[in-house]
Amino acid sequence: MSISKRQLTTPASMTPVAGNGLLDRRALLGRGIVFAGAAASGLGASGTSAGAEPLKDDPWMLQMGSISLPRQEPSRFEKHVVRTLSNPKHEFRNSHARTPHHLINGTVTPSALAFTICHSGLPDIDPEKHRLVIHGKVRQPKVFTLADLDRYPKVTRMAFIECGGNSAPMFSSQPVQATCQALHGLVSNCEWTGVLVSTLLEEVGADPSAKWFVAEGADSVLLHRSIPMKKGWSDAMIALYQNGERVAPGNGYPMRLLLPGYQGNMNVKHLRRIKVVDQPAMSFYEAKTYSQILPGERLWRFHFLQEVKSFITHPSFGHSLKGPGYYEISGVAYSGYGRISRVMVSADGGKSWAEAALQGTPQPQAFVRFTMPWRWDGQPVVLQSRAWDESGHYQPLRADFVAVRGQTAKPVTNPLAFPNQHYNSLTSWGIDSKGEIRHVYA
Amino acid sequence: MSISKRQLTTPASMTPVAGNGLLDRRALLGRGIVFAGAAASGLGASGTSAGAEPLKDDPWMLQMGSISLPRQEPSRFEKHVVRTLSNPKHEFRNSHARTPHHLINGTVTPSALAFTICHSGLPDIDPEKHRLVIHGKVRQPKVFTLADLDRYPKVTRMAFIECGGNSAPMFSSQPVQATCQALHGLVSNCEWTGVLVSTLLEEVGADPSAKWFVAEGADSVLLHRSIPMKKGWSDAMIALYQNGERVAPGNGYPMRLLLPGYQGNMNVKHLRRIKVVDQPAMSFYEAKTYSQILPGERLWRFHFLQEVKSFITHPSFGHSLKGPGYYEISGVAYSGYGRISRVMVSADGGKSWAEAALQGTPQPQAFVRFTMPWRWDGQPVVLQSRAWDESGHYQPLRADFVAVRGQTAKPVTNPLAFPNQHYNSLTSWGIDSKGEIRHVYA
Repeated sequence: MSISKRQLTTPASMTPVAGNGLLDRRALLGRGIVFAGAAASGLGASGTSAGAEPLKDDPWMLQMGSISLPRQEPSRFEKHVVRTLSNPKHEFRNSHARTPHHLINGTVTPSALAFTICHSGLPDIDPEKHRLVIHGKVRQPKVFTLADLDRYPKVTRMAFIECGGNSAPMFSSQPVQATCQALHGLVSNCEWTGVLVSTLLEEVGADPSAKWFVAEGADSVLLHRSIPMKKGWSDAMIALYQNGERVAPGNGYPMRLLLPGYQGNMNVKHLRRIKVVDQPAMSFYEAKTYSQILPGERLWRFHFLQEVKSFITHPSFGHSLKGPGYYEISGVAYSGYGRISRVMVSADGGKSWAEAALQGTPQPQAFVRFTMPWRWDGQPVVLQSRAWDESGHYQPLRADFVAVRGQTAKPVTNPLAFPNQHYNSLTSWGIDSKGEIRHVYA
Repeated sequence: MSISKRQLTTPASMTPVAGNGLLDRRALLGRGIVFAGAAASGLGASGTSAGAEPLKDDPWMLQMGSISLPRQEPSRFEKHVVRTLSNPKHEFRNSHARTPHHLINGTVTPSALAFTICHSGLPDIDPEKHRLVIHGKVRQPKVFTLADLDRYPKVTRMAFIECGGNSAPMFSSQPVQATCQALHGLVSNCEWTGVLVSTLLEEVGADPSAKWFVAEGADSVLLHRSIPMKKGWSDAMIALYQNGERVAPGNGYPMRLLLPGYQGNMNVKHLRRIKVVDQPAMSFYEAKTYSQILPGERLWRFHFLQEVKSFITHPSFGHSLKGPGYYEISGVAYSGYGRISRVMVSADGGKSWAEAALQGTPQPQAFVRFTMPWRWDGQPVVLQSRAWDESGHYQPLRADFVAVRGQTAKPVTNPLAFPNQHYNSLTSWGIDSKGEIRHVYA
């Protein structure tokens, strides 16, 4: 927790720390201020209210409630908190399900809402029959069952996984009007438990001079990618559990490759093969789809790392502000290089910045939630966040990013129509005097 | 992650570090050893296998898979991973749903599997109509809507919640044969996001000399408990989100009190009232149910803190070992006092101990997963874990615990029939030469 006891008992200054009402991240906003429009109770002050009953009985208090189920479900009032689907009729093509970042909070993405991209639907894998083989340039090829892998030493860690194509609508030369879910919904952050790939490379006696391994999944497109052995010998994991439960079907049941910080598509789902080799396979997804297109008819191949990034989830497109007063600005930040070290927030489109609070202990290649108290005066503002990581990398400003990576020649409005990859510049939310929020470039 | 690169490339000794095959927690167990019964692939060694195809095509690889849903569900092969219910016919009494700790891993308890105890079913609360009032010894009583609270500064943290009656079957004078779920399933560990109670106490101008507040829920029993103001001024939270989503119905939708480290029943669900007072209310649950019965017709009242505790989840009752060889021993540890600092594991019923690895960065009042590699020689063993926390507290040995807290005069076999509270001594799993696991006292 970022708020210490001292901070709780020592009021920070209510003087803004940057333009348009950003307040010190340690500010305690009570102190007699009606922060968020909470109403006086209709009771008198202390003493006179001692015996009063300011609350009516609501209908749910007048009867026994419903039964507890073996698996608990969200309230029926939360049915809007779902993934959005790119292929709801299940046509014979790929299918995206995007995480509703503007409707959730904290840092853990529940598995039910974790983003998925399936290239040929969800395979219905019998975990007793599934096998993982490790072969190629190894001393002794081996076949592993799920039960075998459960006996190996395992590690538990948080890690984000982000599709290389996440935030692709931001390559439009004009801002696409869409929620965090539509713009940035192809990233999620879960707890993963599994066996380090290095443990299994030791087990089979992998050739230490080999440069690559090819990972292949058991879906019907046999999705496969080439991964540098360097990653296999470091923090790559065969993930067996996701947020405590077995890996979800859309995220790779019964086992997936986890490559912390690397492009989502490389984290091969339904993993059935690791083949140790000398040369990359030049498979479909590495030779074509996930190449990084650059200005001037060039491209980058093997651009694996998801770079440092942040975006504000609250408030954001799809929300509106209910009049002037105090609000919390919050969002998520993450980096494929390691831990987030700092997030700055601006309410004046980048003219001035203030440092946000980071909730909890930042973990490598994992979401951290940043928060900042803010007093809105009812005038138009532009909210932005910008993140730094422990390796010294930071989110580039949009002009600098576009100069290197490019943008579309004409405005594009379809958020699914962008072929480009690895957007990690800023996201800007413009709020007008009515509290309506638009996506802007600033 | 607890395994550093140096540890990965520098093999630790395979010499046992304690009796009956406990291995150094940094041991890398590959090195040509067939760790867990994985089979040779039938391929030749490196080179000759380069073009071979050791895997057959499974049925799910030969067709397009199923559709992605707005909320993802676990595989149909995981239907056994559910909470067990104490009141499956929804009779007019309380209802327990227990977390299957022996079937999950890592540290996050998914909300679907988080334990719940409902005293009058699940209230179907409309979040737009729900109100929280704060009154009593305050300068200005206030009523808060959920939308009001969403505007306040929030914190995000992991925290376990444990029922005071968790592990009550361990008070039996003879070991009850039951899973971790039946014995210890009334504890879960989730990420919570919400507003600190202290922020709202400032907002209403709570009397700094007041000693207690009474928290009341909106279920039909109006469950209410008295909580020391000291906790309200420190880390108590009004939790609005659980694992990213709105708090689950069984865990207090749309808002609950979170008192990190305090007895579960005090973490009042469906919170609708905080009344600042001078004296405890002496409500049903604090004056009777959650009193701590001691030997000699005495009891402790106001025993709030859930003390340091650990238990081994893998392997445990309900599992069996498939022959001698290498296994991972793993479990969870937590303490209401703060962070776990150390977990020791024994395979010889407490004669010798070795230090387990802790996964990730221990957080205060939250689960940490401990792990230890182990080579089982096929002889009978007794597995135990014992935890220490940063405050210097540790799990008492059973004899010491029973001397203070007591046990039943006769063996009791019904795991639901124990009125006593706050068991935090060791759990021991006896494994016979067939690999069958029983609950034993050692």
